[in-house]
Amino acid sequence: MIDWNARLSRRAHGQPDLIGGILALAGARDLINFSGGFPDPSLFATDVLGDIARKLIESDAAVALQYSSSEGIASTRAALADLLAGTDGRRPGDDELTVTSGGIDAITLIAKSMLDPGDVVVVEEPSYLGAVSGFVAFDPELRGVPLDDDGLDVDALAALLRTLPSPPKLLYTIPDFQNPSGRTMSAERRGALVELCRRHGILIVEDVAYSQLGFDDAPRPTLWSLGPDVVVQIGTFSKVFLPGVRLGWAVGPAAVIAQLRIAKQNSDQCAGALGQRMLEEYLRAGHLDAHLPRARDLYRRRAATLTDALERHFDGLATWTVPRGGFFSWLRVPGVDTVALAAAARESKVAFVPGAGFFAERRDDEHLRLSYSRISESDIEEGVARLAVAVRAMRERRAS
Amino acid sequence: MIDWNARLSRRAHGQPDLIGGILALAGARDLINFSGGFPDPSLFATDVLGDIARKLIESDAAVALQYSSSEGIASTRAALADLLAGTDGRRPGDDELTVTSGGIDAITLIAKSMLDPGDVVVVEEPSYLGAVSGFVAFDPELRGVPLDDDGLDVDALAALLRTLPSPPKLLYTIPDFQNPSGRTMSAERRGALVELCRRHGILIVEDVAYSQLGFDDAPRPTLWSLGPDVVVQIGTFSKVFLPGVRLGWAVGPAAVIAQLRIAKQNSDQCAGALGQRMLEEYLRAGHLDAHLPRARDLYRRRAATLTDALERHFDGLATWTVPRGGFFSWLRVPGVDTVALAAAARESKVAFVPGAGFFAERRDDEHLRLSYSRISESDIEEGVARLAVAVRAMRERRAS
Repeated sequence: MIDWNARLSRRAHGQPDLIGGILALAGARDLINFSGGFPDPSLFATDVLGDIARKLIESDAAVALQYSSSEGIASTRAALADLLAGTDGRRPGDDELTVTSGGIDAITLIAKSMLDPGDVVVVEEPSYLGAVSGFVAFDPELRGVPLDDDGLDVDALAALLRTLPSPPKLLYTIPDFQNPSGRTMSAERRGALVELCRRHGILIVEDVAYSQLGFDDAPRPTLWSLGPDVVVQIGTFSKVFLPGVRLGWAVGPAAVIAQLRIAKQNSDQCAGALGQRMLEEYLRAGHLDAHLPRARDLYRRRAATLTDALERHFDGLATWTVPRGGFFSWLRVPGVDTVALAAAARESKVAFVPGAGFFAERRDDEHLRLSYSRISESDIEEGVARLAVAVRAMRERRAS
Repeated sequence: MIDWNARLSRRAHGQPDLIGGILALAGARDLINFSGGFPDPSLFATDVLGDIARKLIESDAAVALQYSSSEGIASTRAALADLLAGTDGRRPGDDELTVTSGGIDAITLIAKSMLDPGDVVVVEEPSYLGAVSGFVAFDPELRGVPLDDDGLDVDALAALLRTLPSPPKLLYTIPDFQNPSGRTMSAERRGALVELCRRHGILIVEDVAYSQLGFDDAPRPTLWSLGPDVVVQIGTFSKVFLPGVRLGWAVGPAAVIAQLRIAKQNSDQCAGALGQRMLEEYLRAGHLDAHLPRARDLYRRRAATLTDALERHFDGLATWTVPRGGFFSWLRVPGVDTVALAAAARESKVAFVPGAGFFAERRDDEHLRLSYSRISESDIEEGVARLAVAVRAMRERRAS
């Protein structure tokens, strides 16, 4: 027997299976599942997409069922450019935009295009572990910058930059309803961040996964709209359309986008054409505009239910962020190891993601992330109650 | 202005855009296009897939439109395992099989999991440039082994191994109707290759992209069926189902497959669930069994048309391989630089892929690849005639 584990690449050794456990629960039915950034399937546009798919298959097979160009189907890219003109107030040029197979694919293409081993990547502390694992596969040195109520601490970033011998290659940020913390970057910080990174030649990777799911509809300028010369914005349609066709985008400086397209070719050639054309028809018919208010309403209601349940069950046990959009609340449970808590909670048929994996430098075992996006209001209430019982039990065991 | 090109990764510098030009022609309508391994869209099962897609969207949205687990939907994997039991005579265990987003994605996942910079990857000379570019993105040292009429020359491989200080990490081969040469490995060679690689601990990557598209239906044992302990077989559904949903598989030693699943998570999380479920329904209903004879007939007819046209127009100008399956014939045009020929042919509205990009070590400018899979018989005839005119014109220019 050949020992294949001994033949793996160095990057594969000890690469933890961080999100496998989350995705493995994607279809679980027997537990209250606060893990994963899953959209609620009741929001999927099944009423219109069945007909859209059937028509494309029957009348556009030579495009919709064939290979796509690596940058995406031209008509689909035009629809995305129109979308960005609306959300960002700036329509990207044809050489500034490329289609990806979702957000993590965009991270991978950027990392493949930009990172040599040991290059520094700055991430928010905490940050989205799925994205971080995408960067880590290309052997960077990760450095963390703290968040506060106004988002990424730009002064702390400036202080970090003064300690580094050369500028980081990339800075990764989720400015809106951040994963996992739920926090949003202030407008002042956005301008200051773009200015600082422009001065140092640092490519900002702006992840807008949840930006369209704000509960208040207040306009927030995207980093890309402020600095199209220094920002690659990556977006996913998994949260506002559906994850089952793997679609997203990257928009940024033409020289970077050109390289992402080559990286896409040598990674998996292209995003699926059927999904691209389905999305395009969905956008052109105005369905996304009709969908977003419904989605915001549902997630706002669930966030309120979660916050309310936390106030009743976790008073004195934990602190948490109050979501203003997106899918997550971020809890700190002082004195509790949340990895151990996750195991205990699974006994009570409750799942969540422990916080440790979200930290790049400063490991912290007292945090956890709750996603309320795919759980009914009654299950949110019940799940939080069970979780509080598990926390109290752990504390009592520790005290005894 | 920041010079982003100066900030790219080393692997990105000078990485040629090898297949972008091919994919960019995917939708071209105004030329006779012998480039690309495109299936013929007339074979796409539009008569059944429209209904399959609509039903899945309307009745299975929580699975078909949601995230999938990284290894693929369990019921889809079961259908793939059944398929492999039929084609390969061996049903993989649950830990031996994972779903990918097509063949190049599988290459990338293997390279990411196995390759450190400088590791040796052995490829056939010539080999499929799309796969080779997937390996090259992870900085290996490529070594070529020649092909003859019985496929990869195993004695030449053994001789190469004796010159290397340590065994290669990977050997990549397309045993059936090889891309680009059209050649097929003999049964004796298959056994010898598995034995040699097992002895040296070399992981064989067996690409079966065209294996179901043989014109004679003669059984050929797959390398994986001969050596499931030492072979990762990768397959794609782009050639026999459709490319528009990006689906393939990898089947091999459990330790390798486990790592590919982690690599999938940190690359793009999962293959699209809608495509997985569409494929599963298509397979379960027996549509693939009905499709394959029709596909073989069409491609056999086109291959015969191509061979016939070559005999009439290229006698004395070139030599070529006679396809026994798959999509390609491989021409040698002595004294002609086929990169320059490609530019001349485009003037006559004919496209093909020059051979130089298919060679890992021994650059050769006199070869070219013709794909007949997506061209009508009359256009094949016309395209070969135009190409012969272009070759004669180049030769005359050179002689004068």
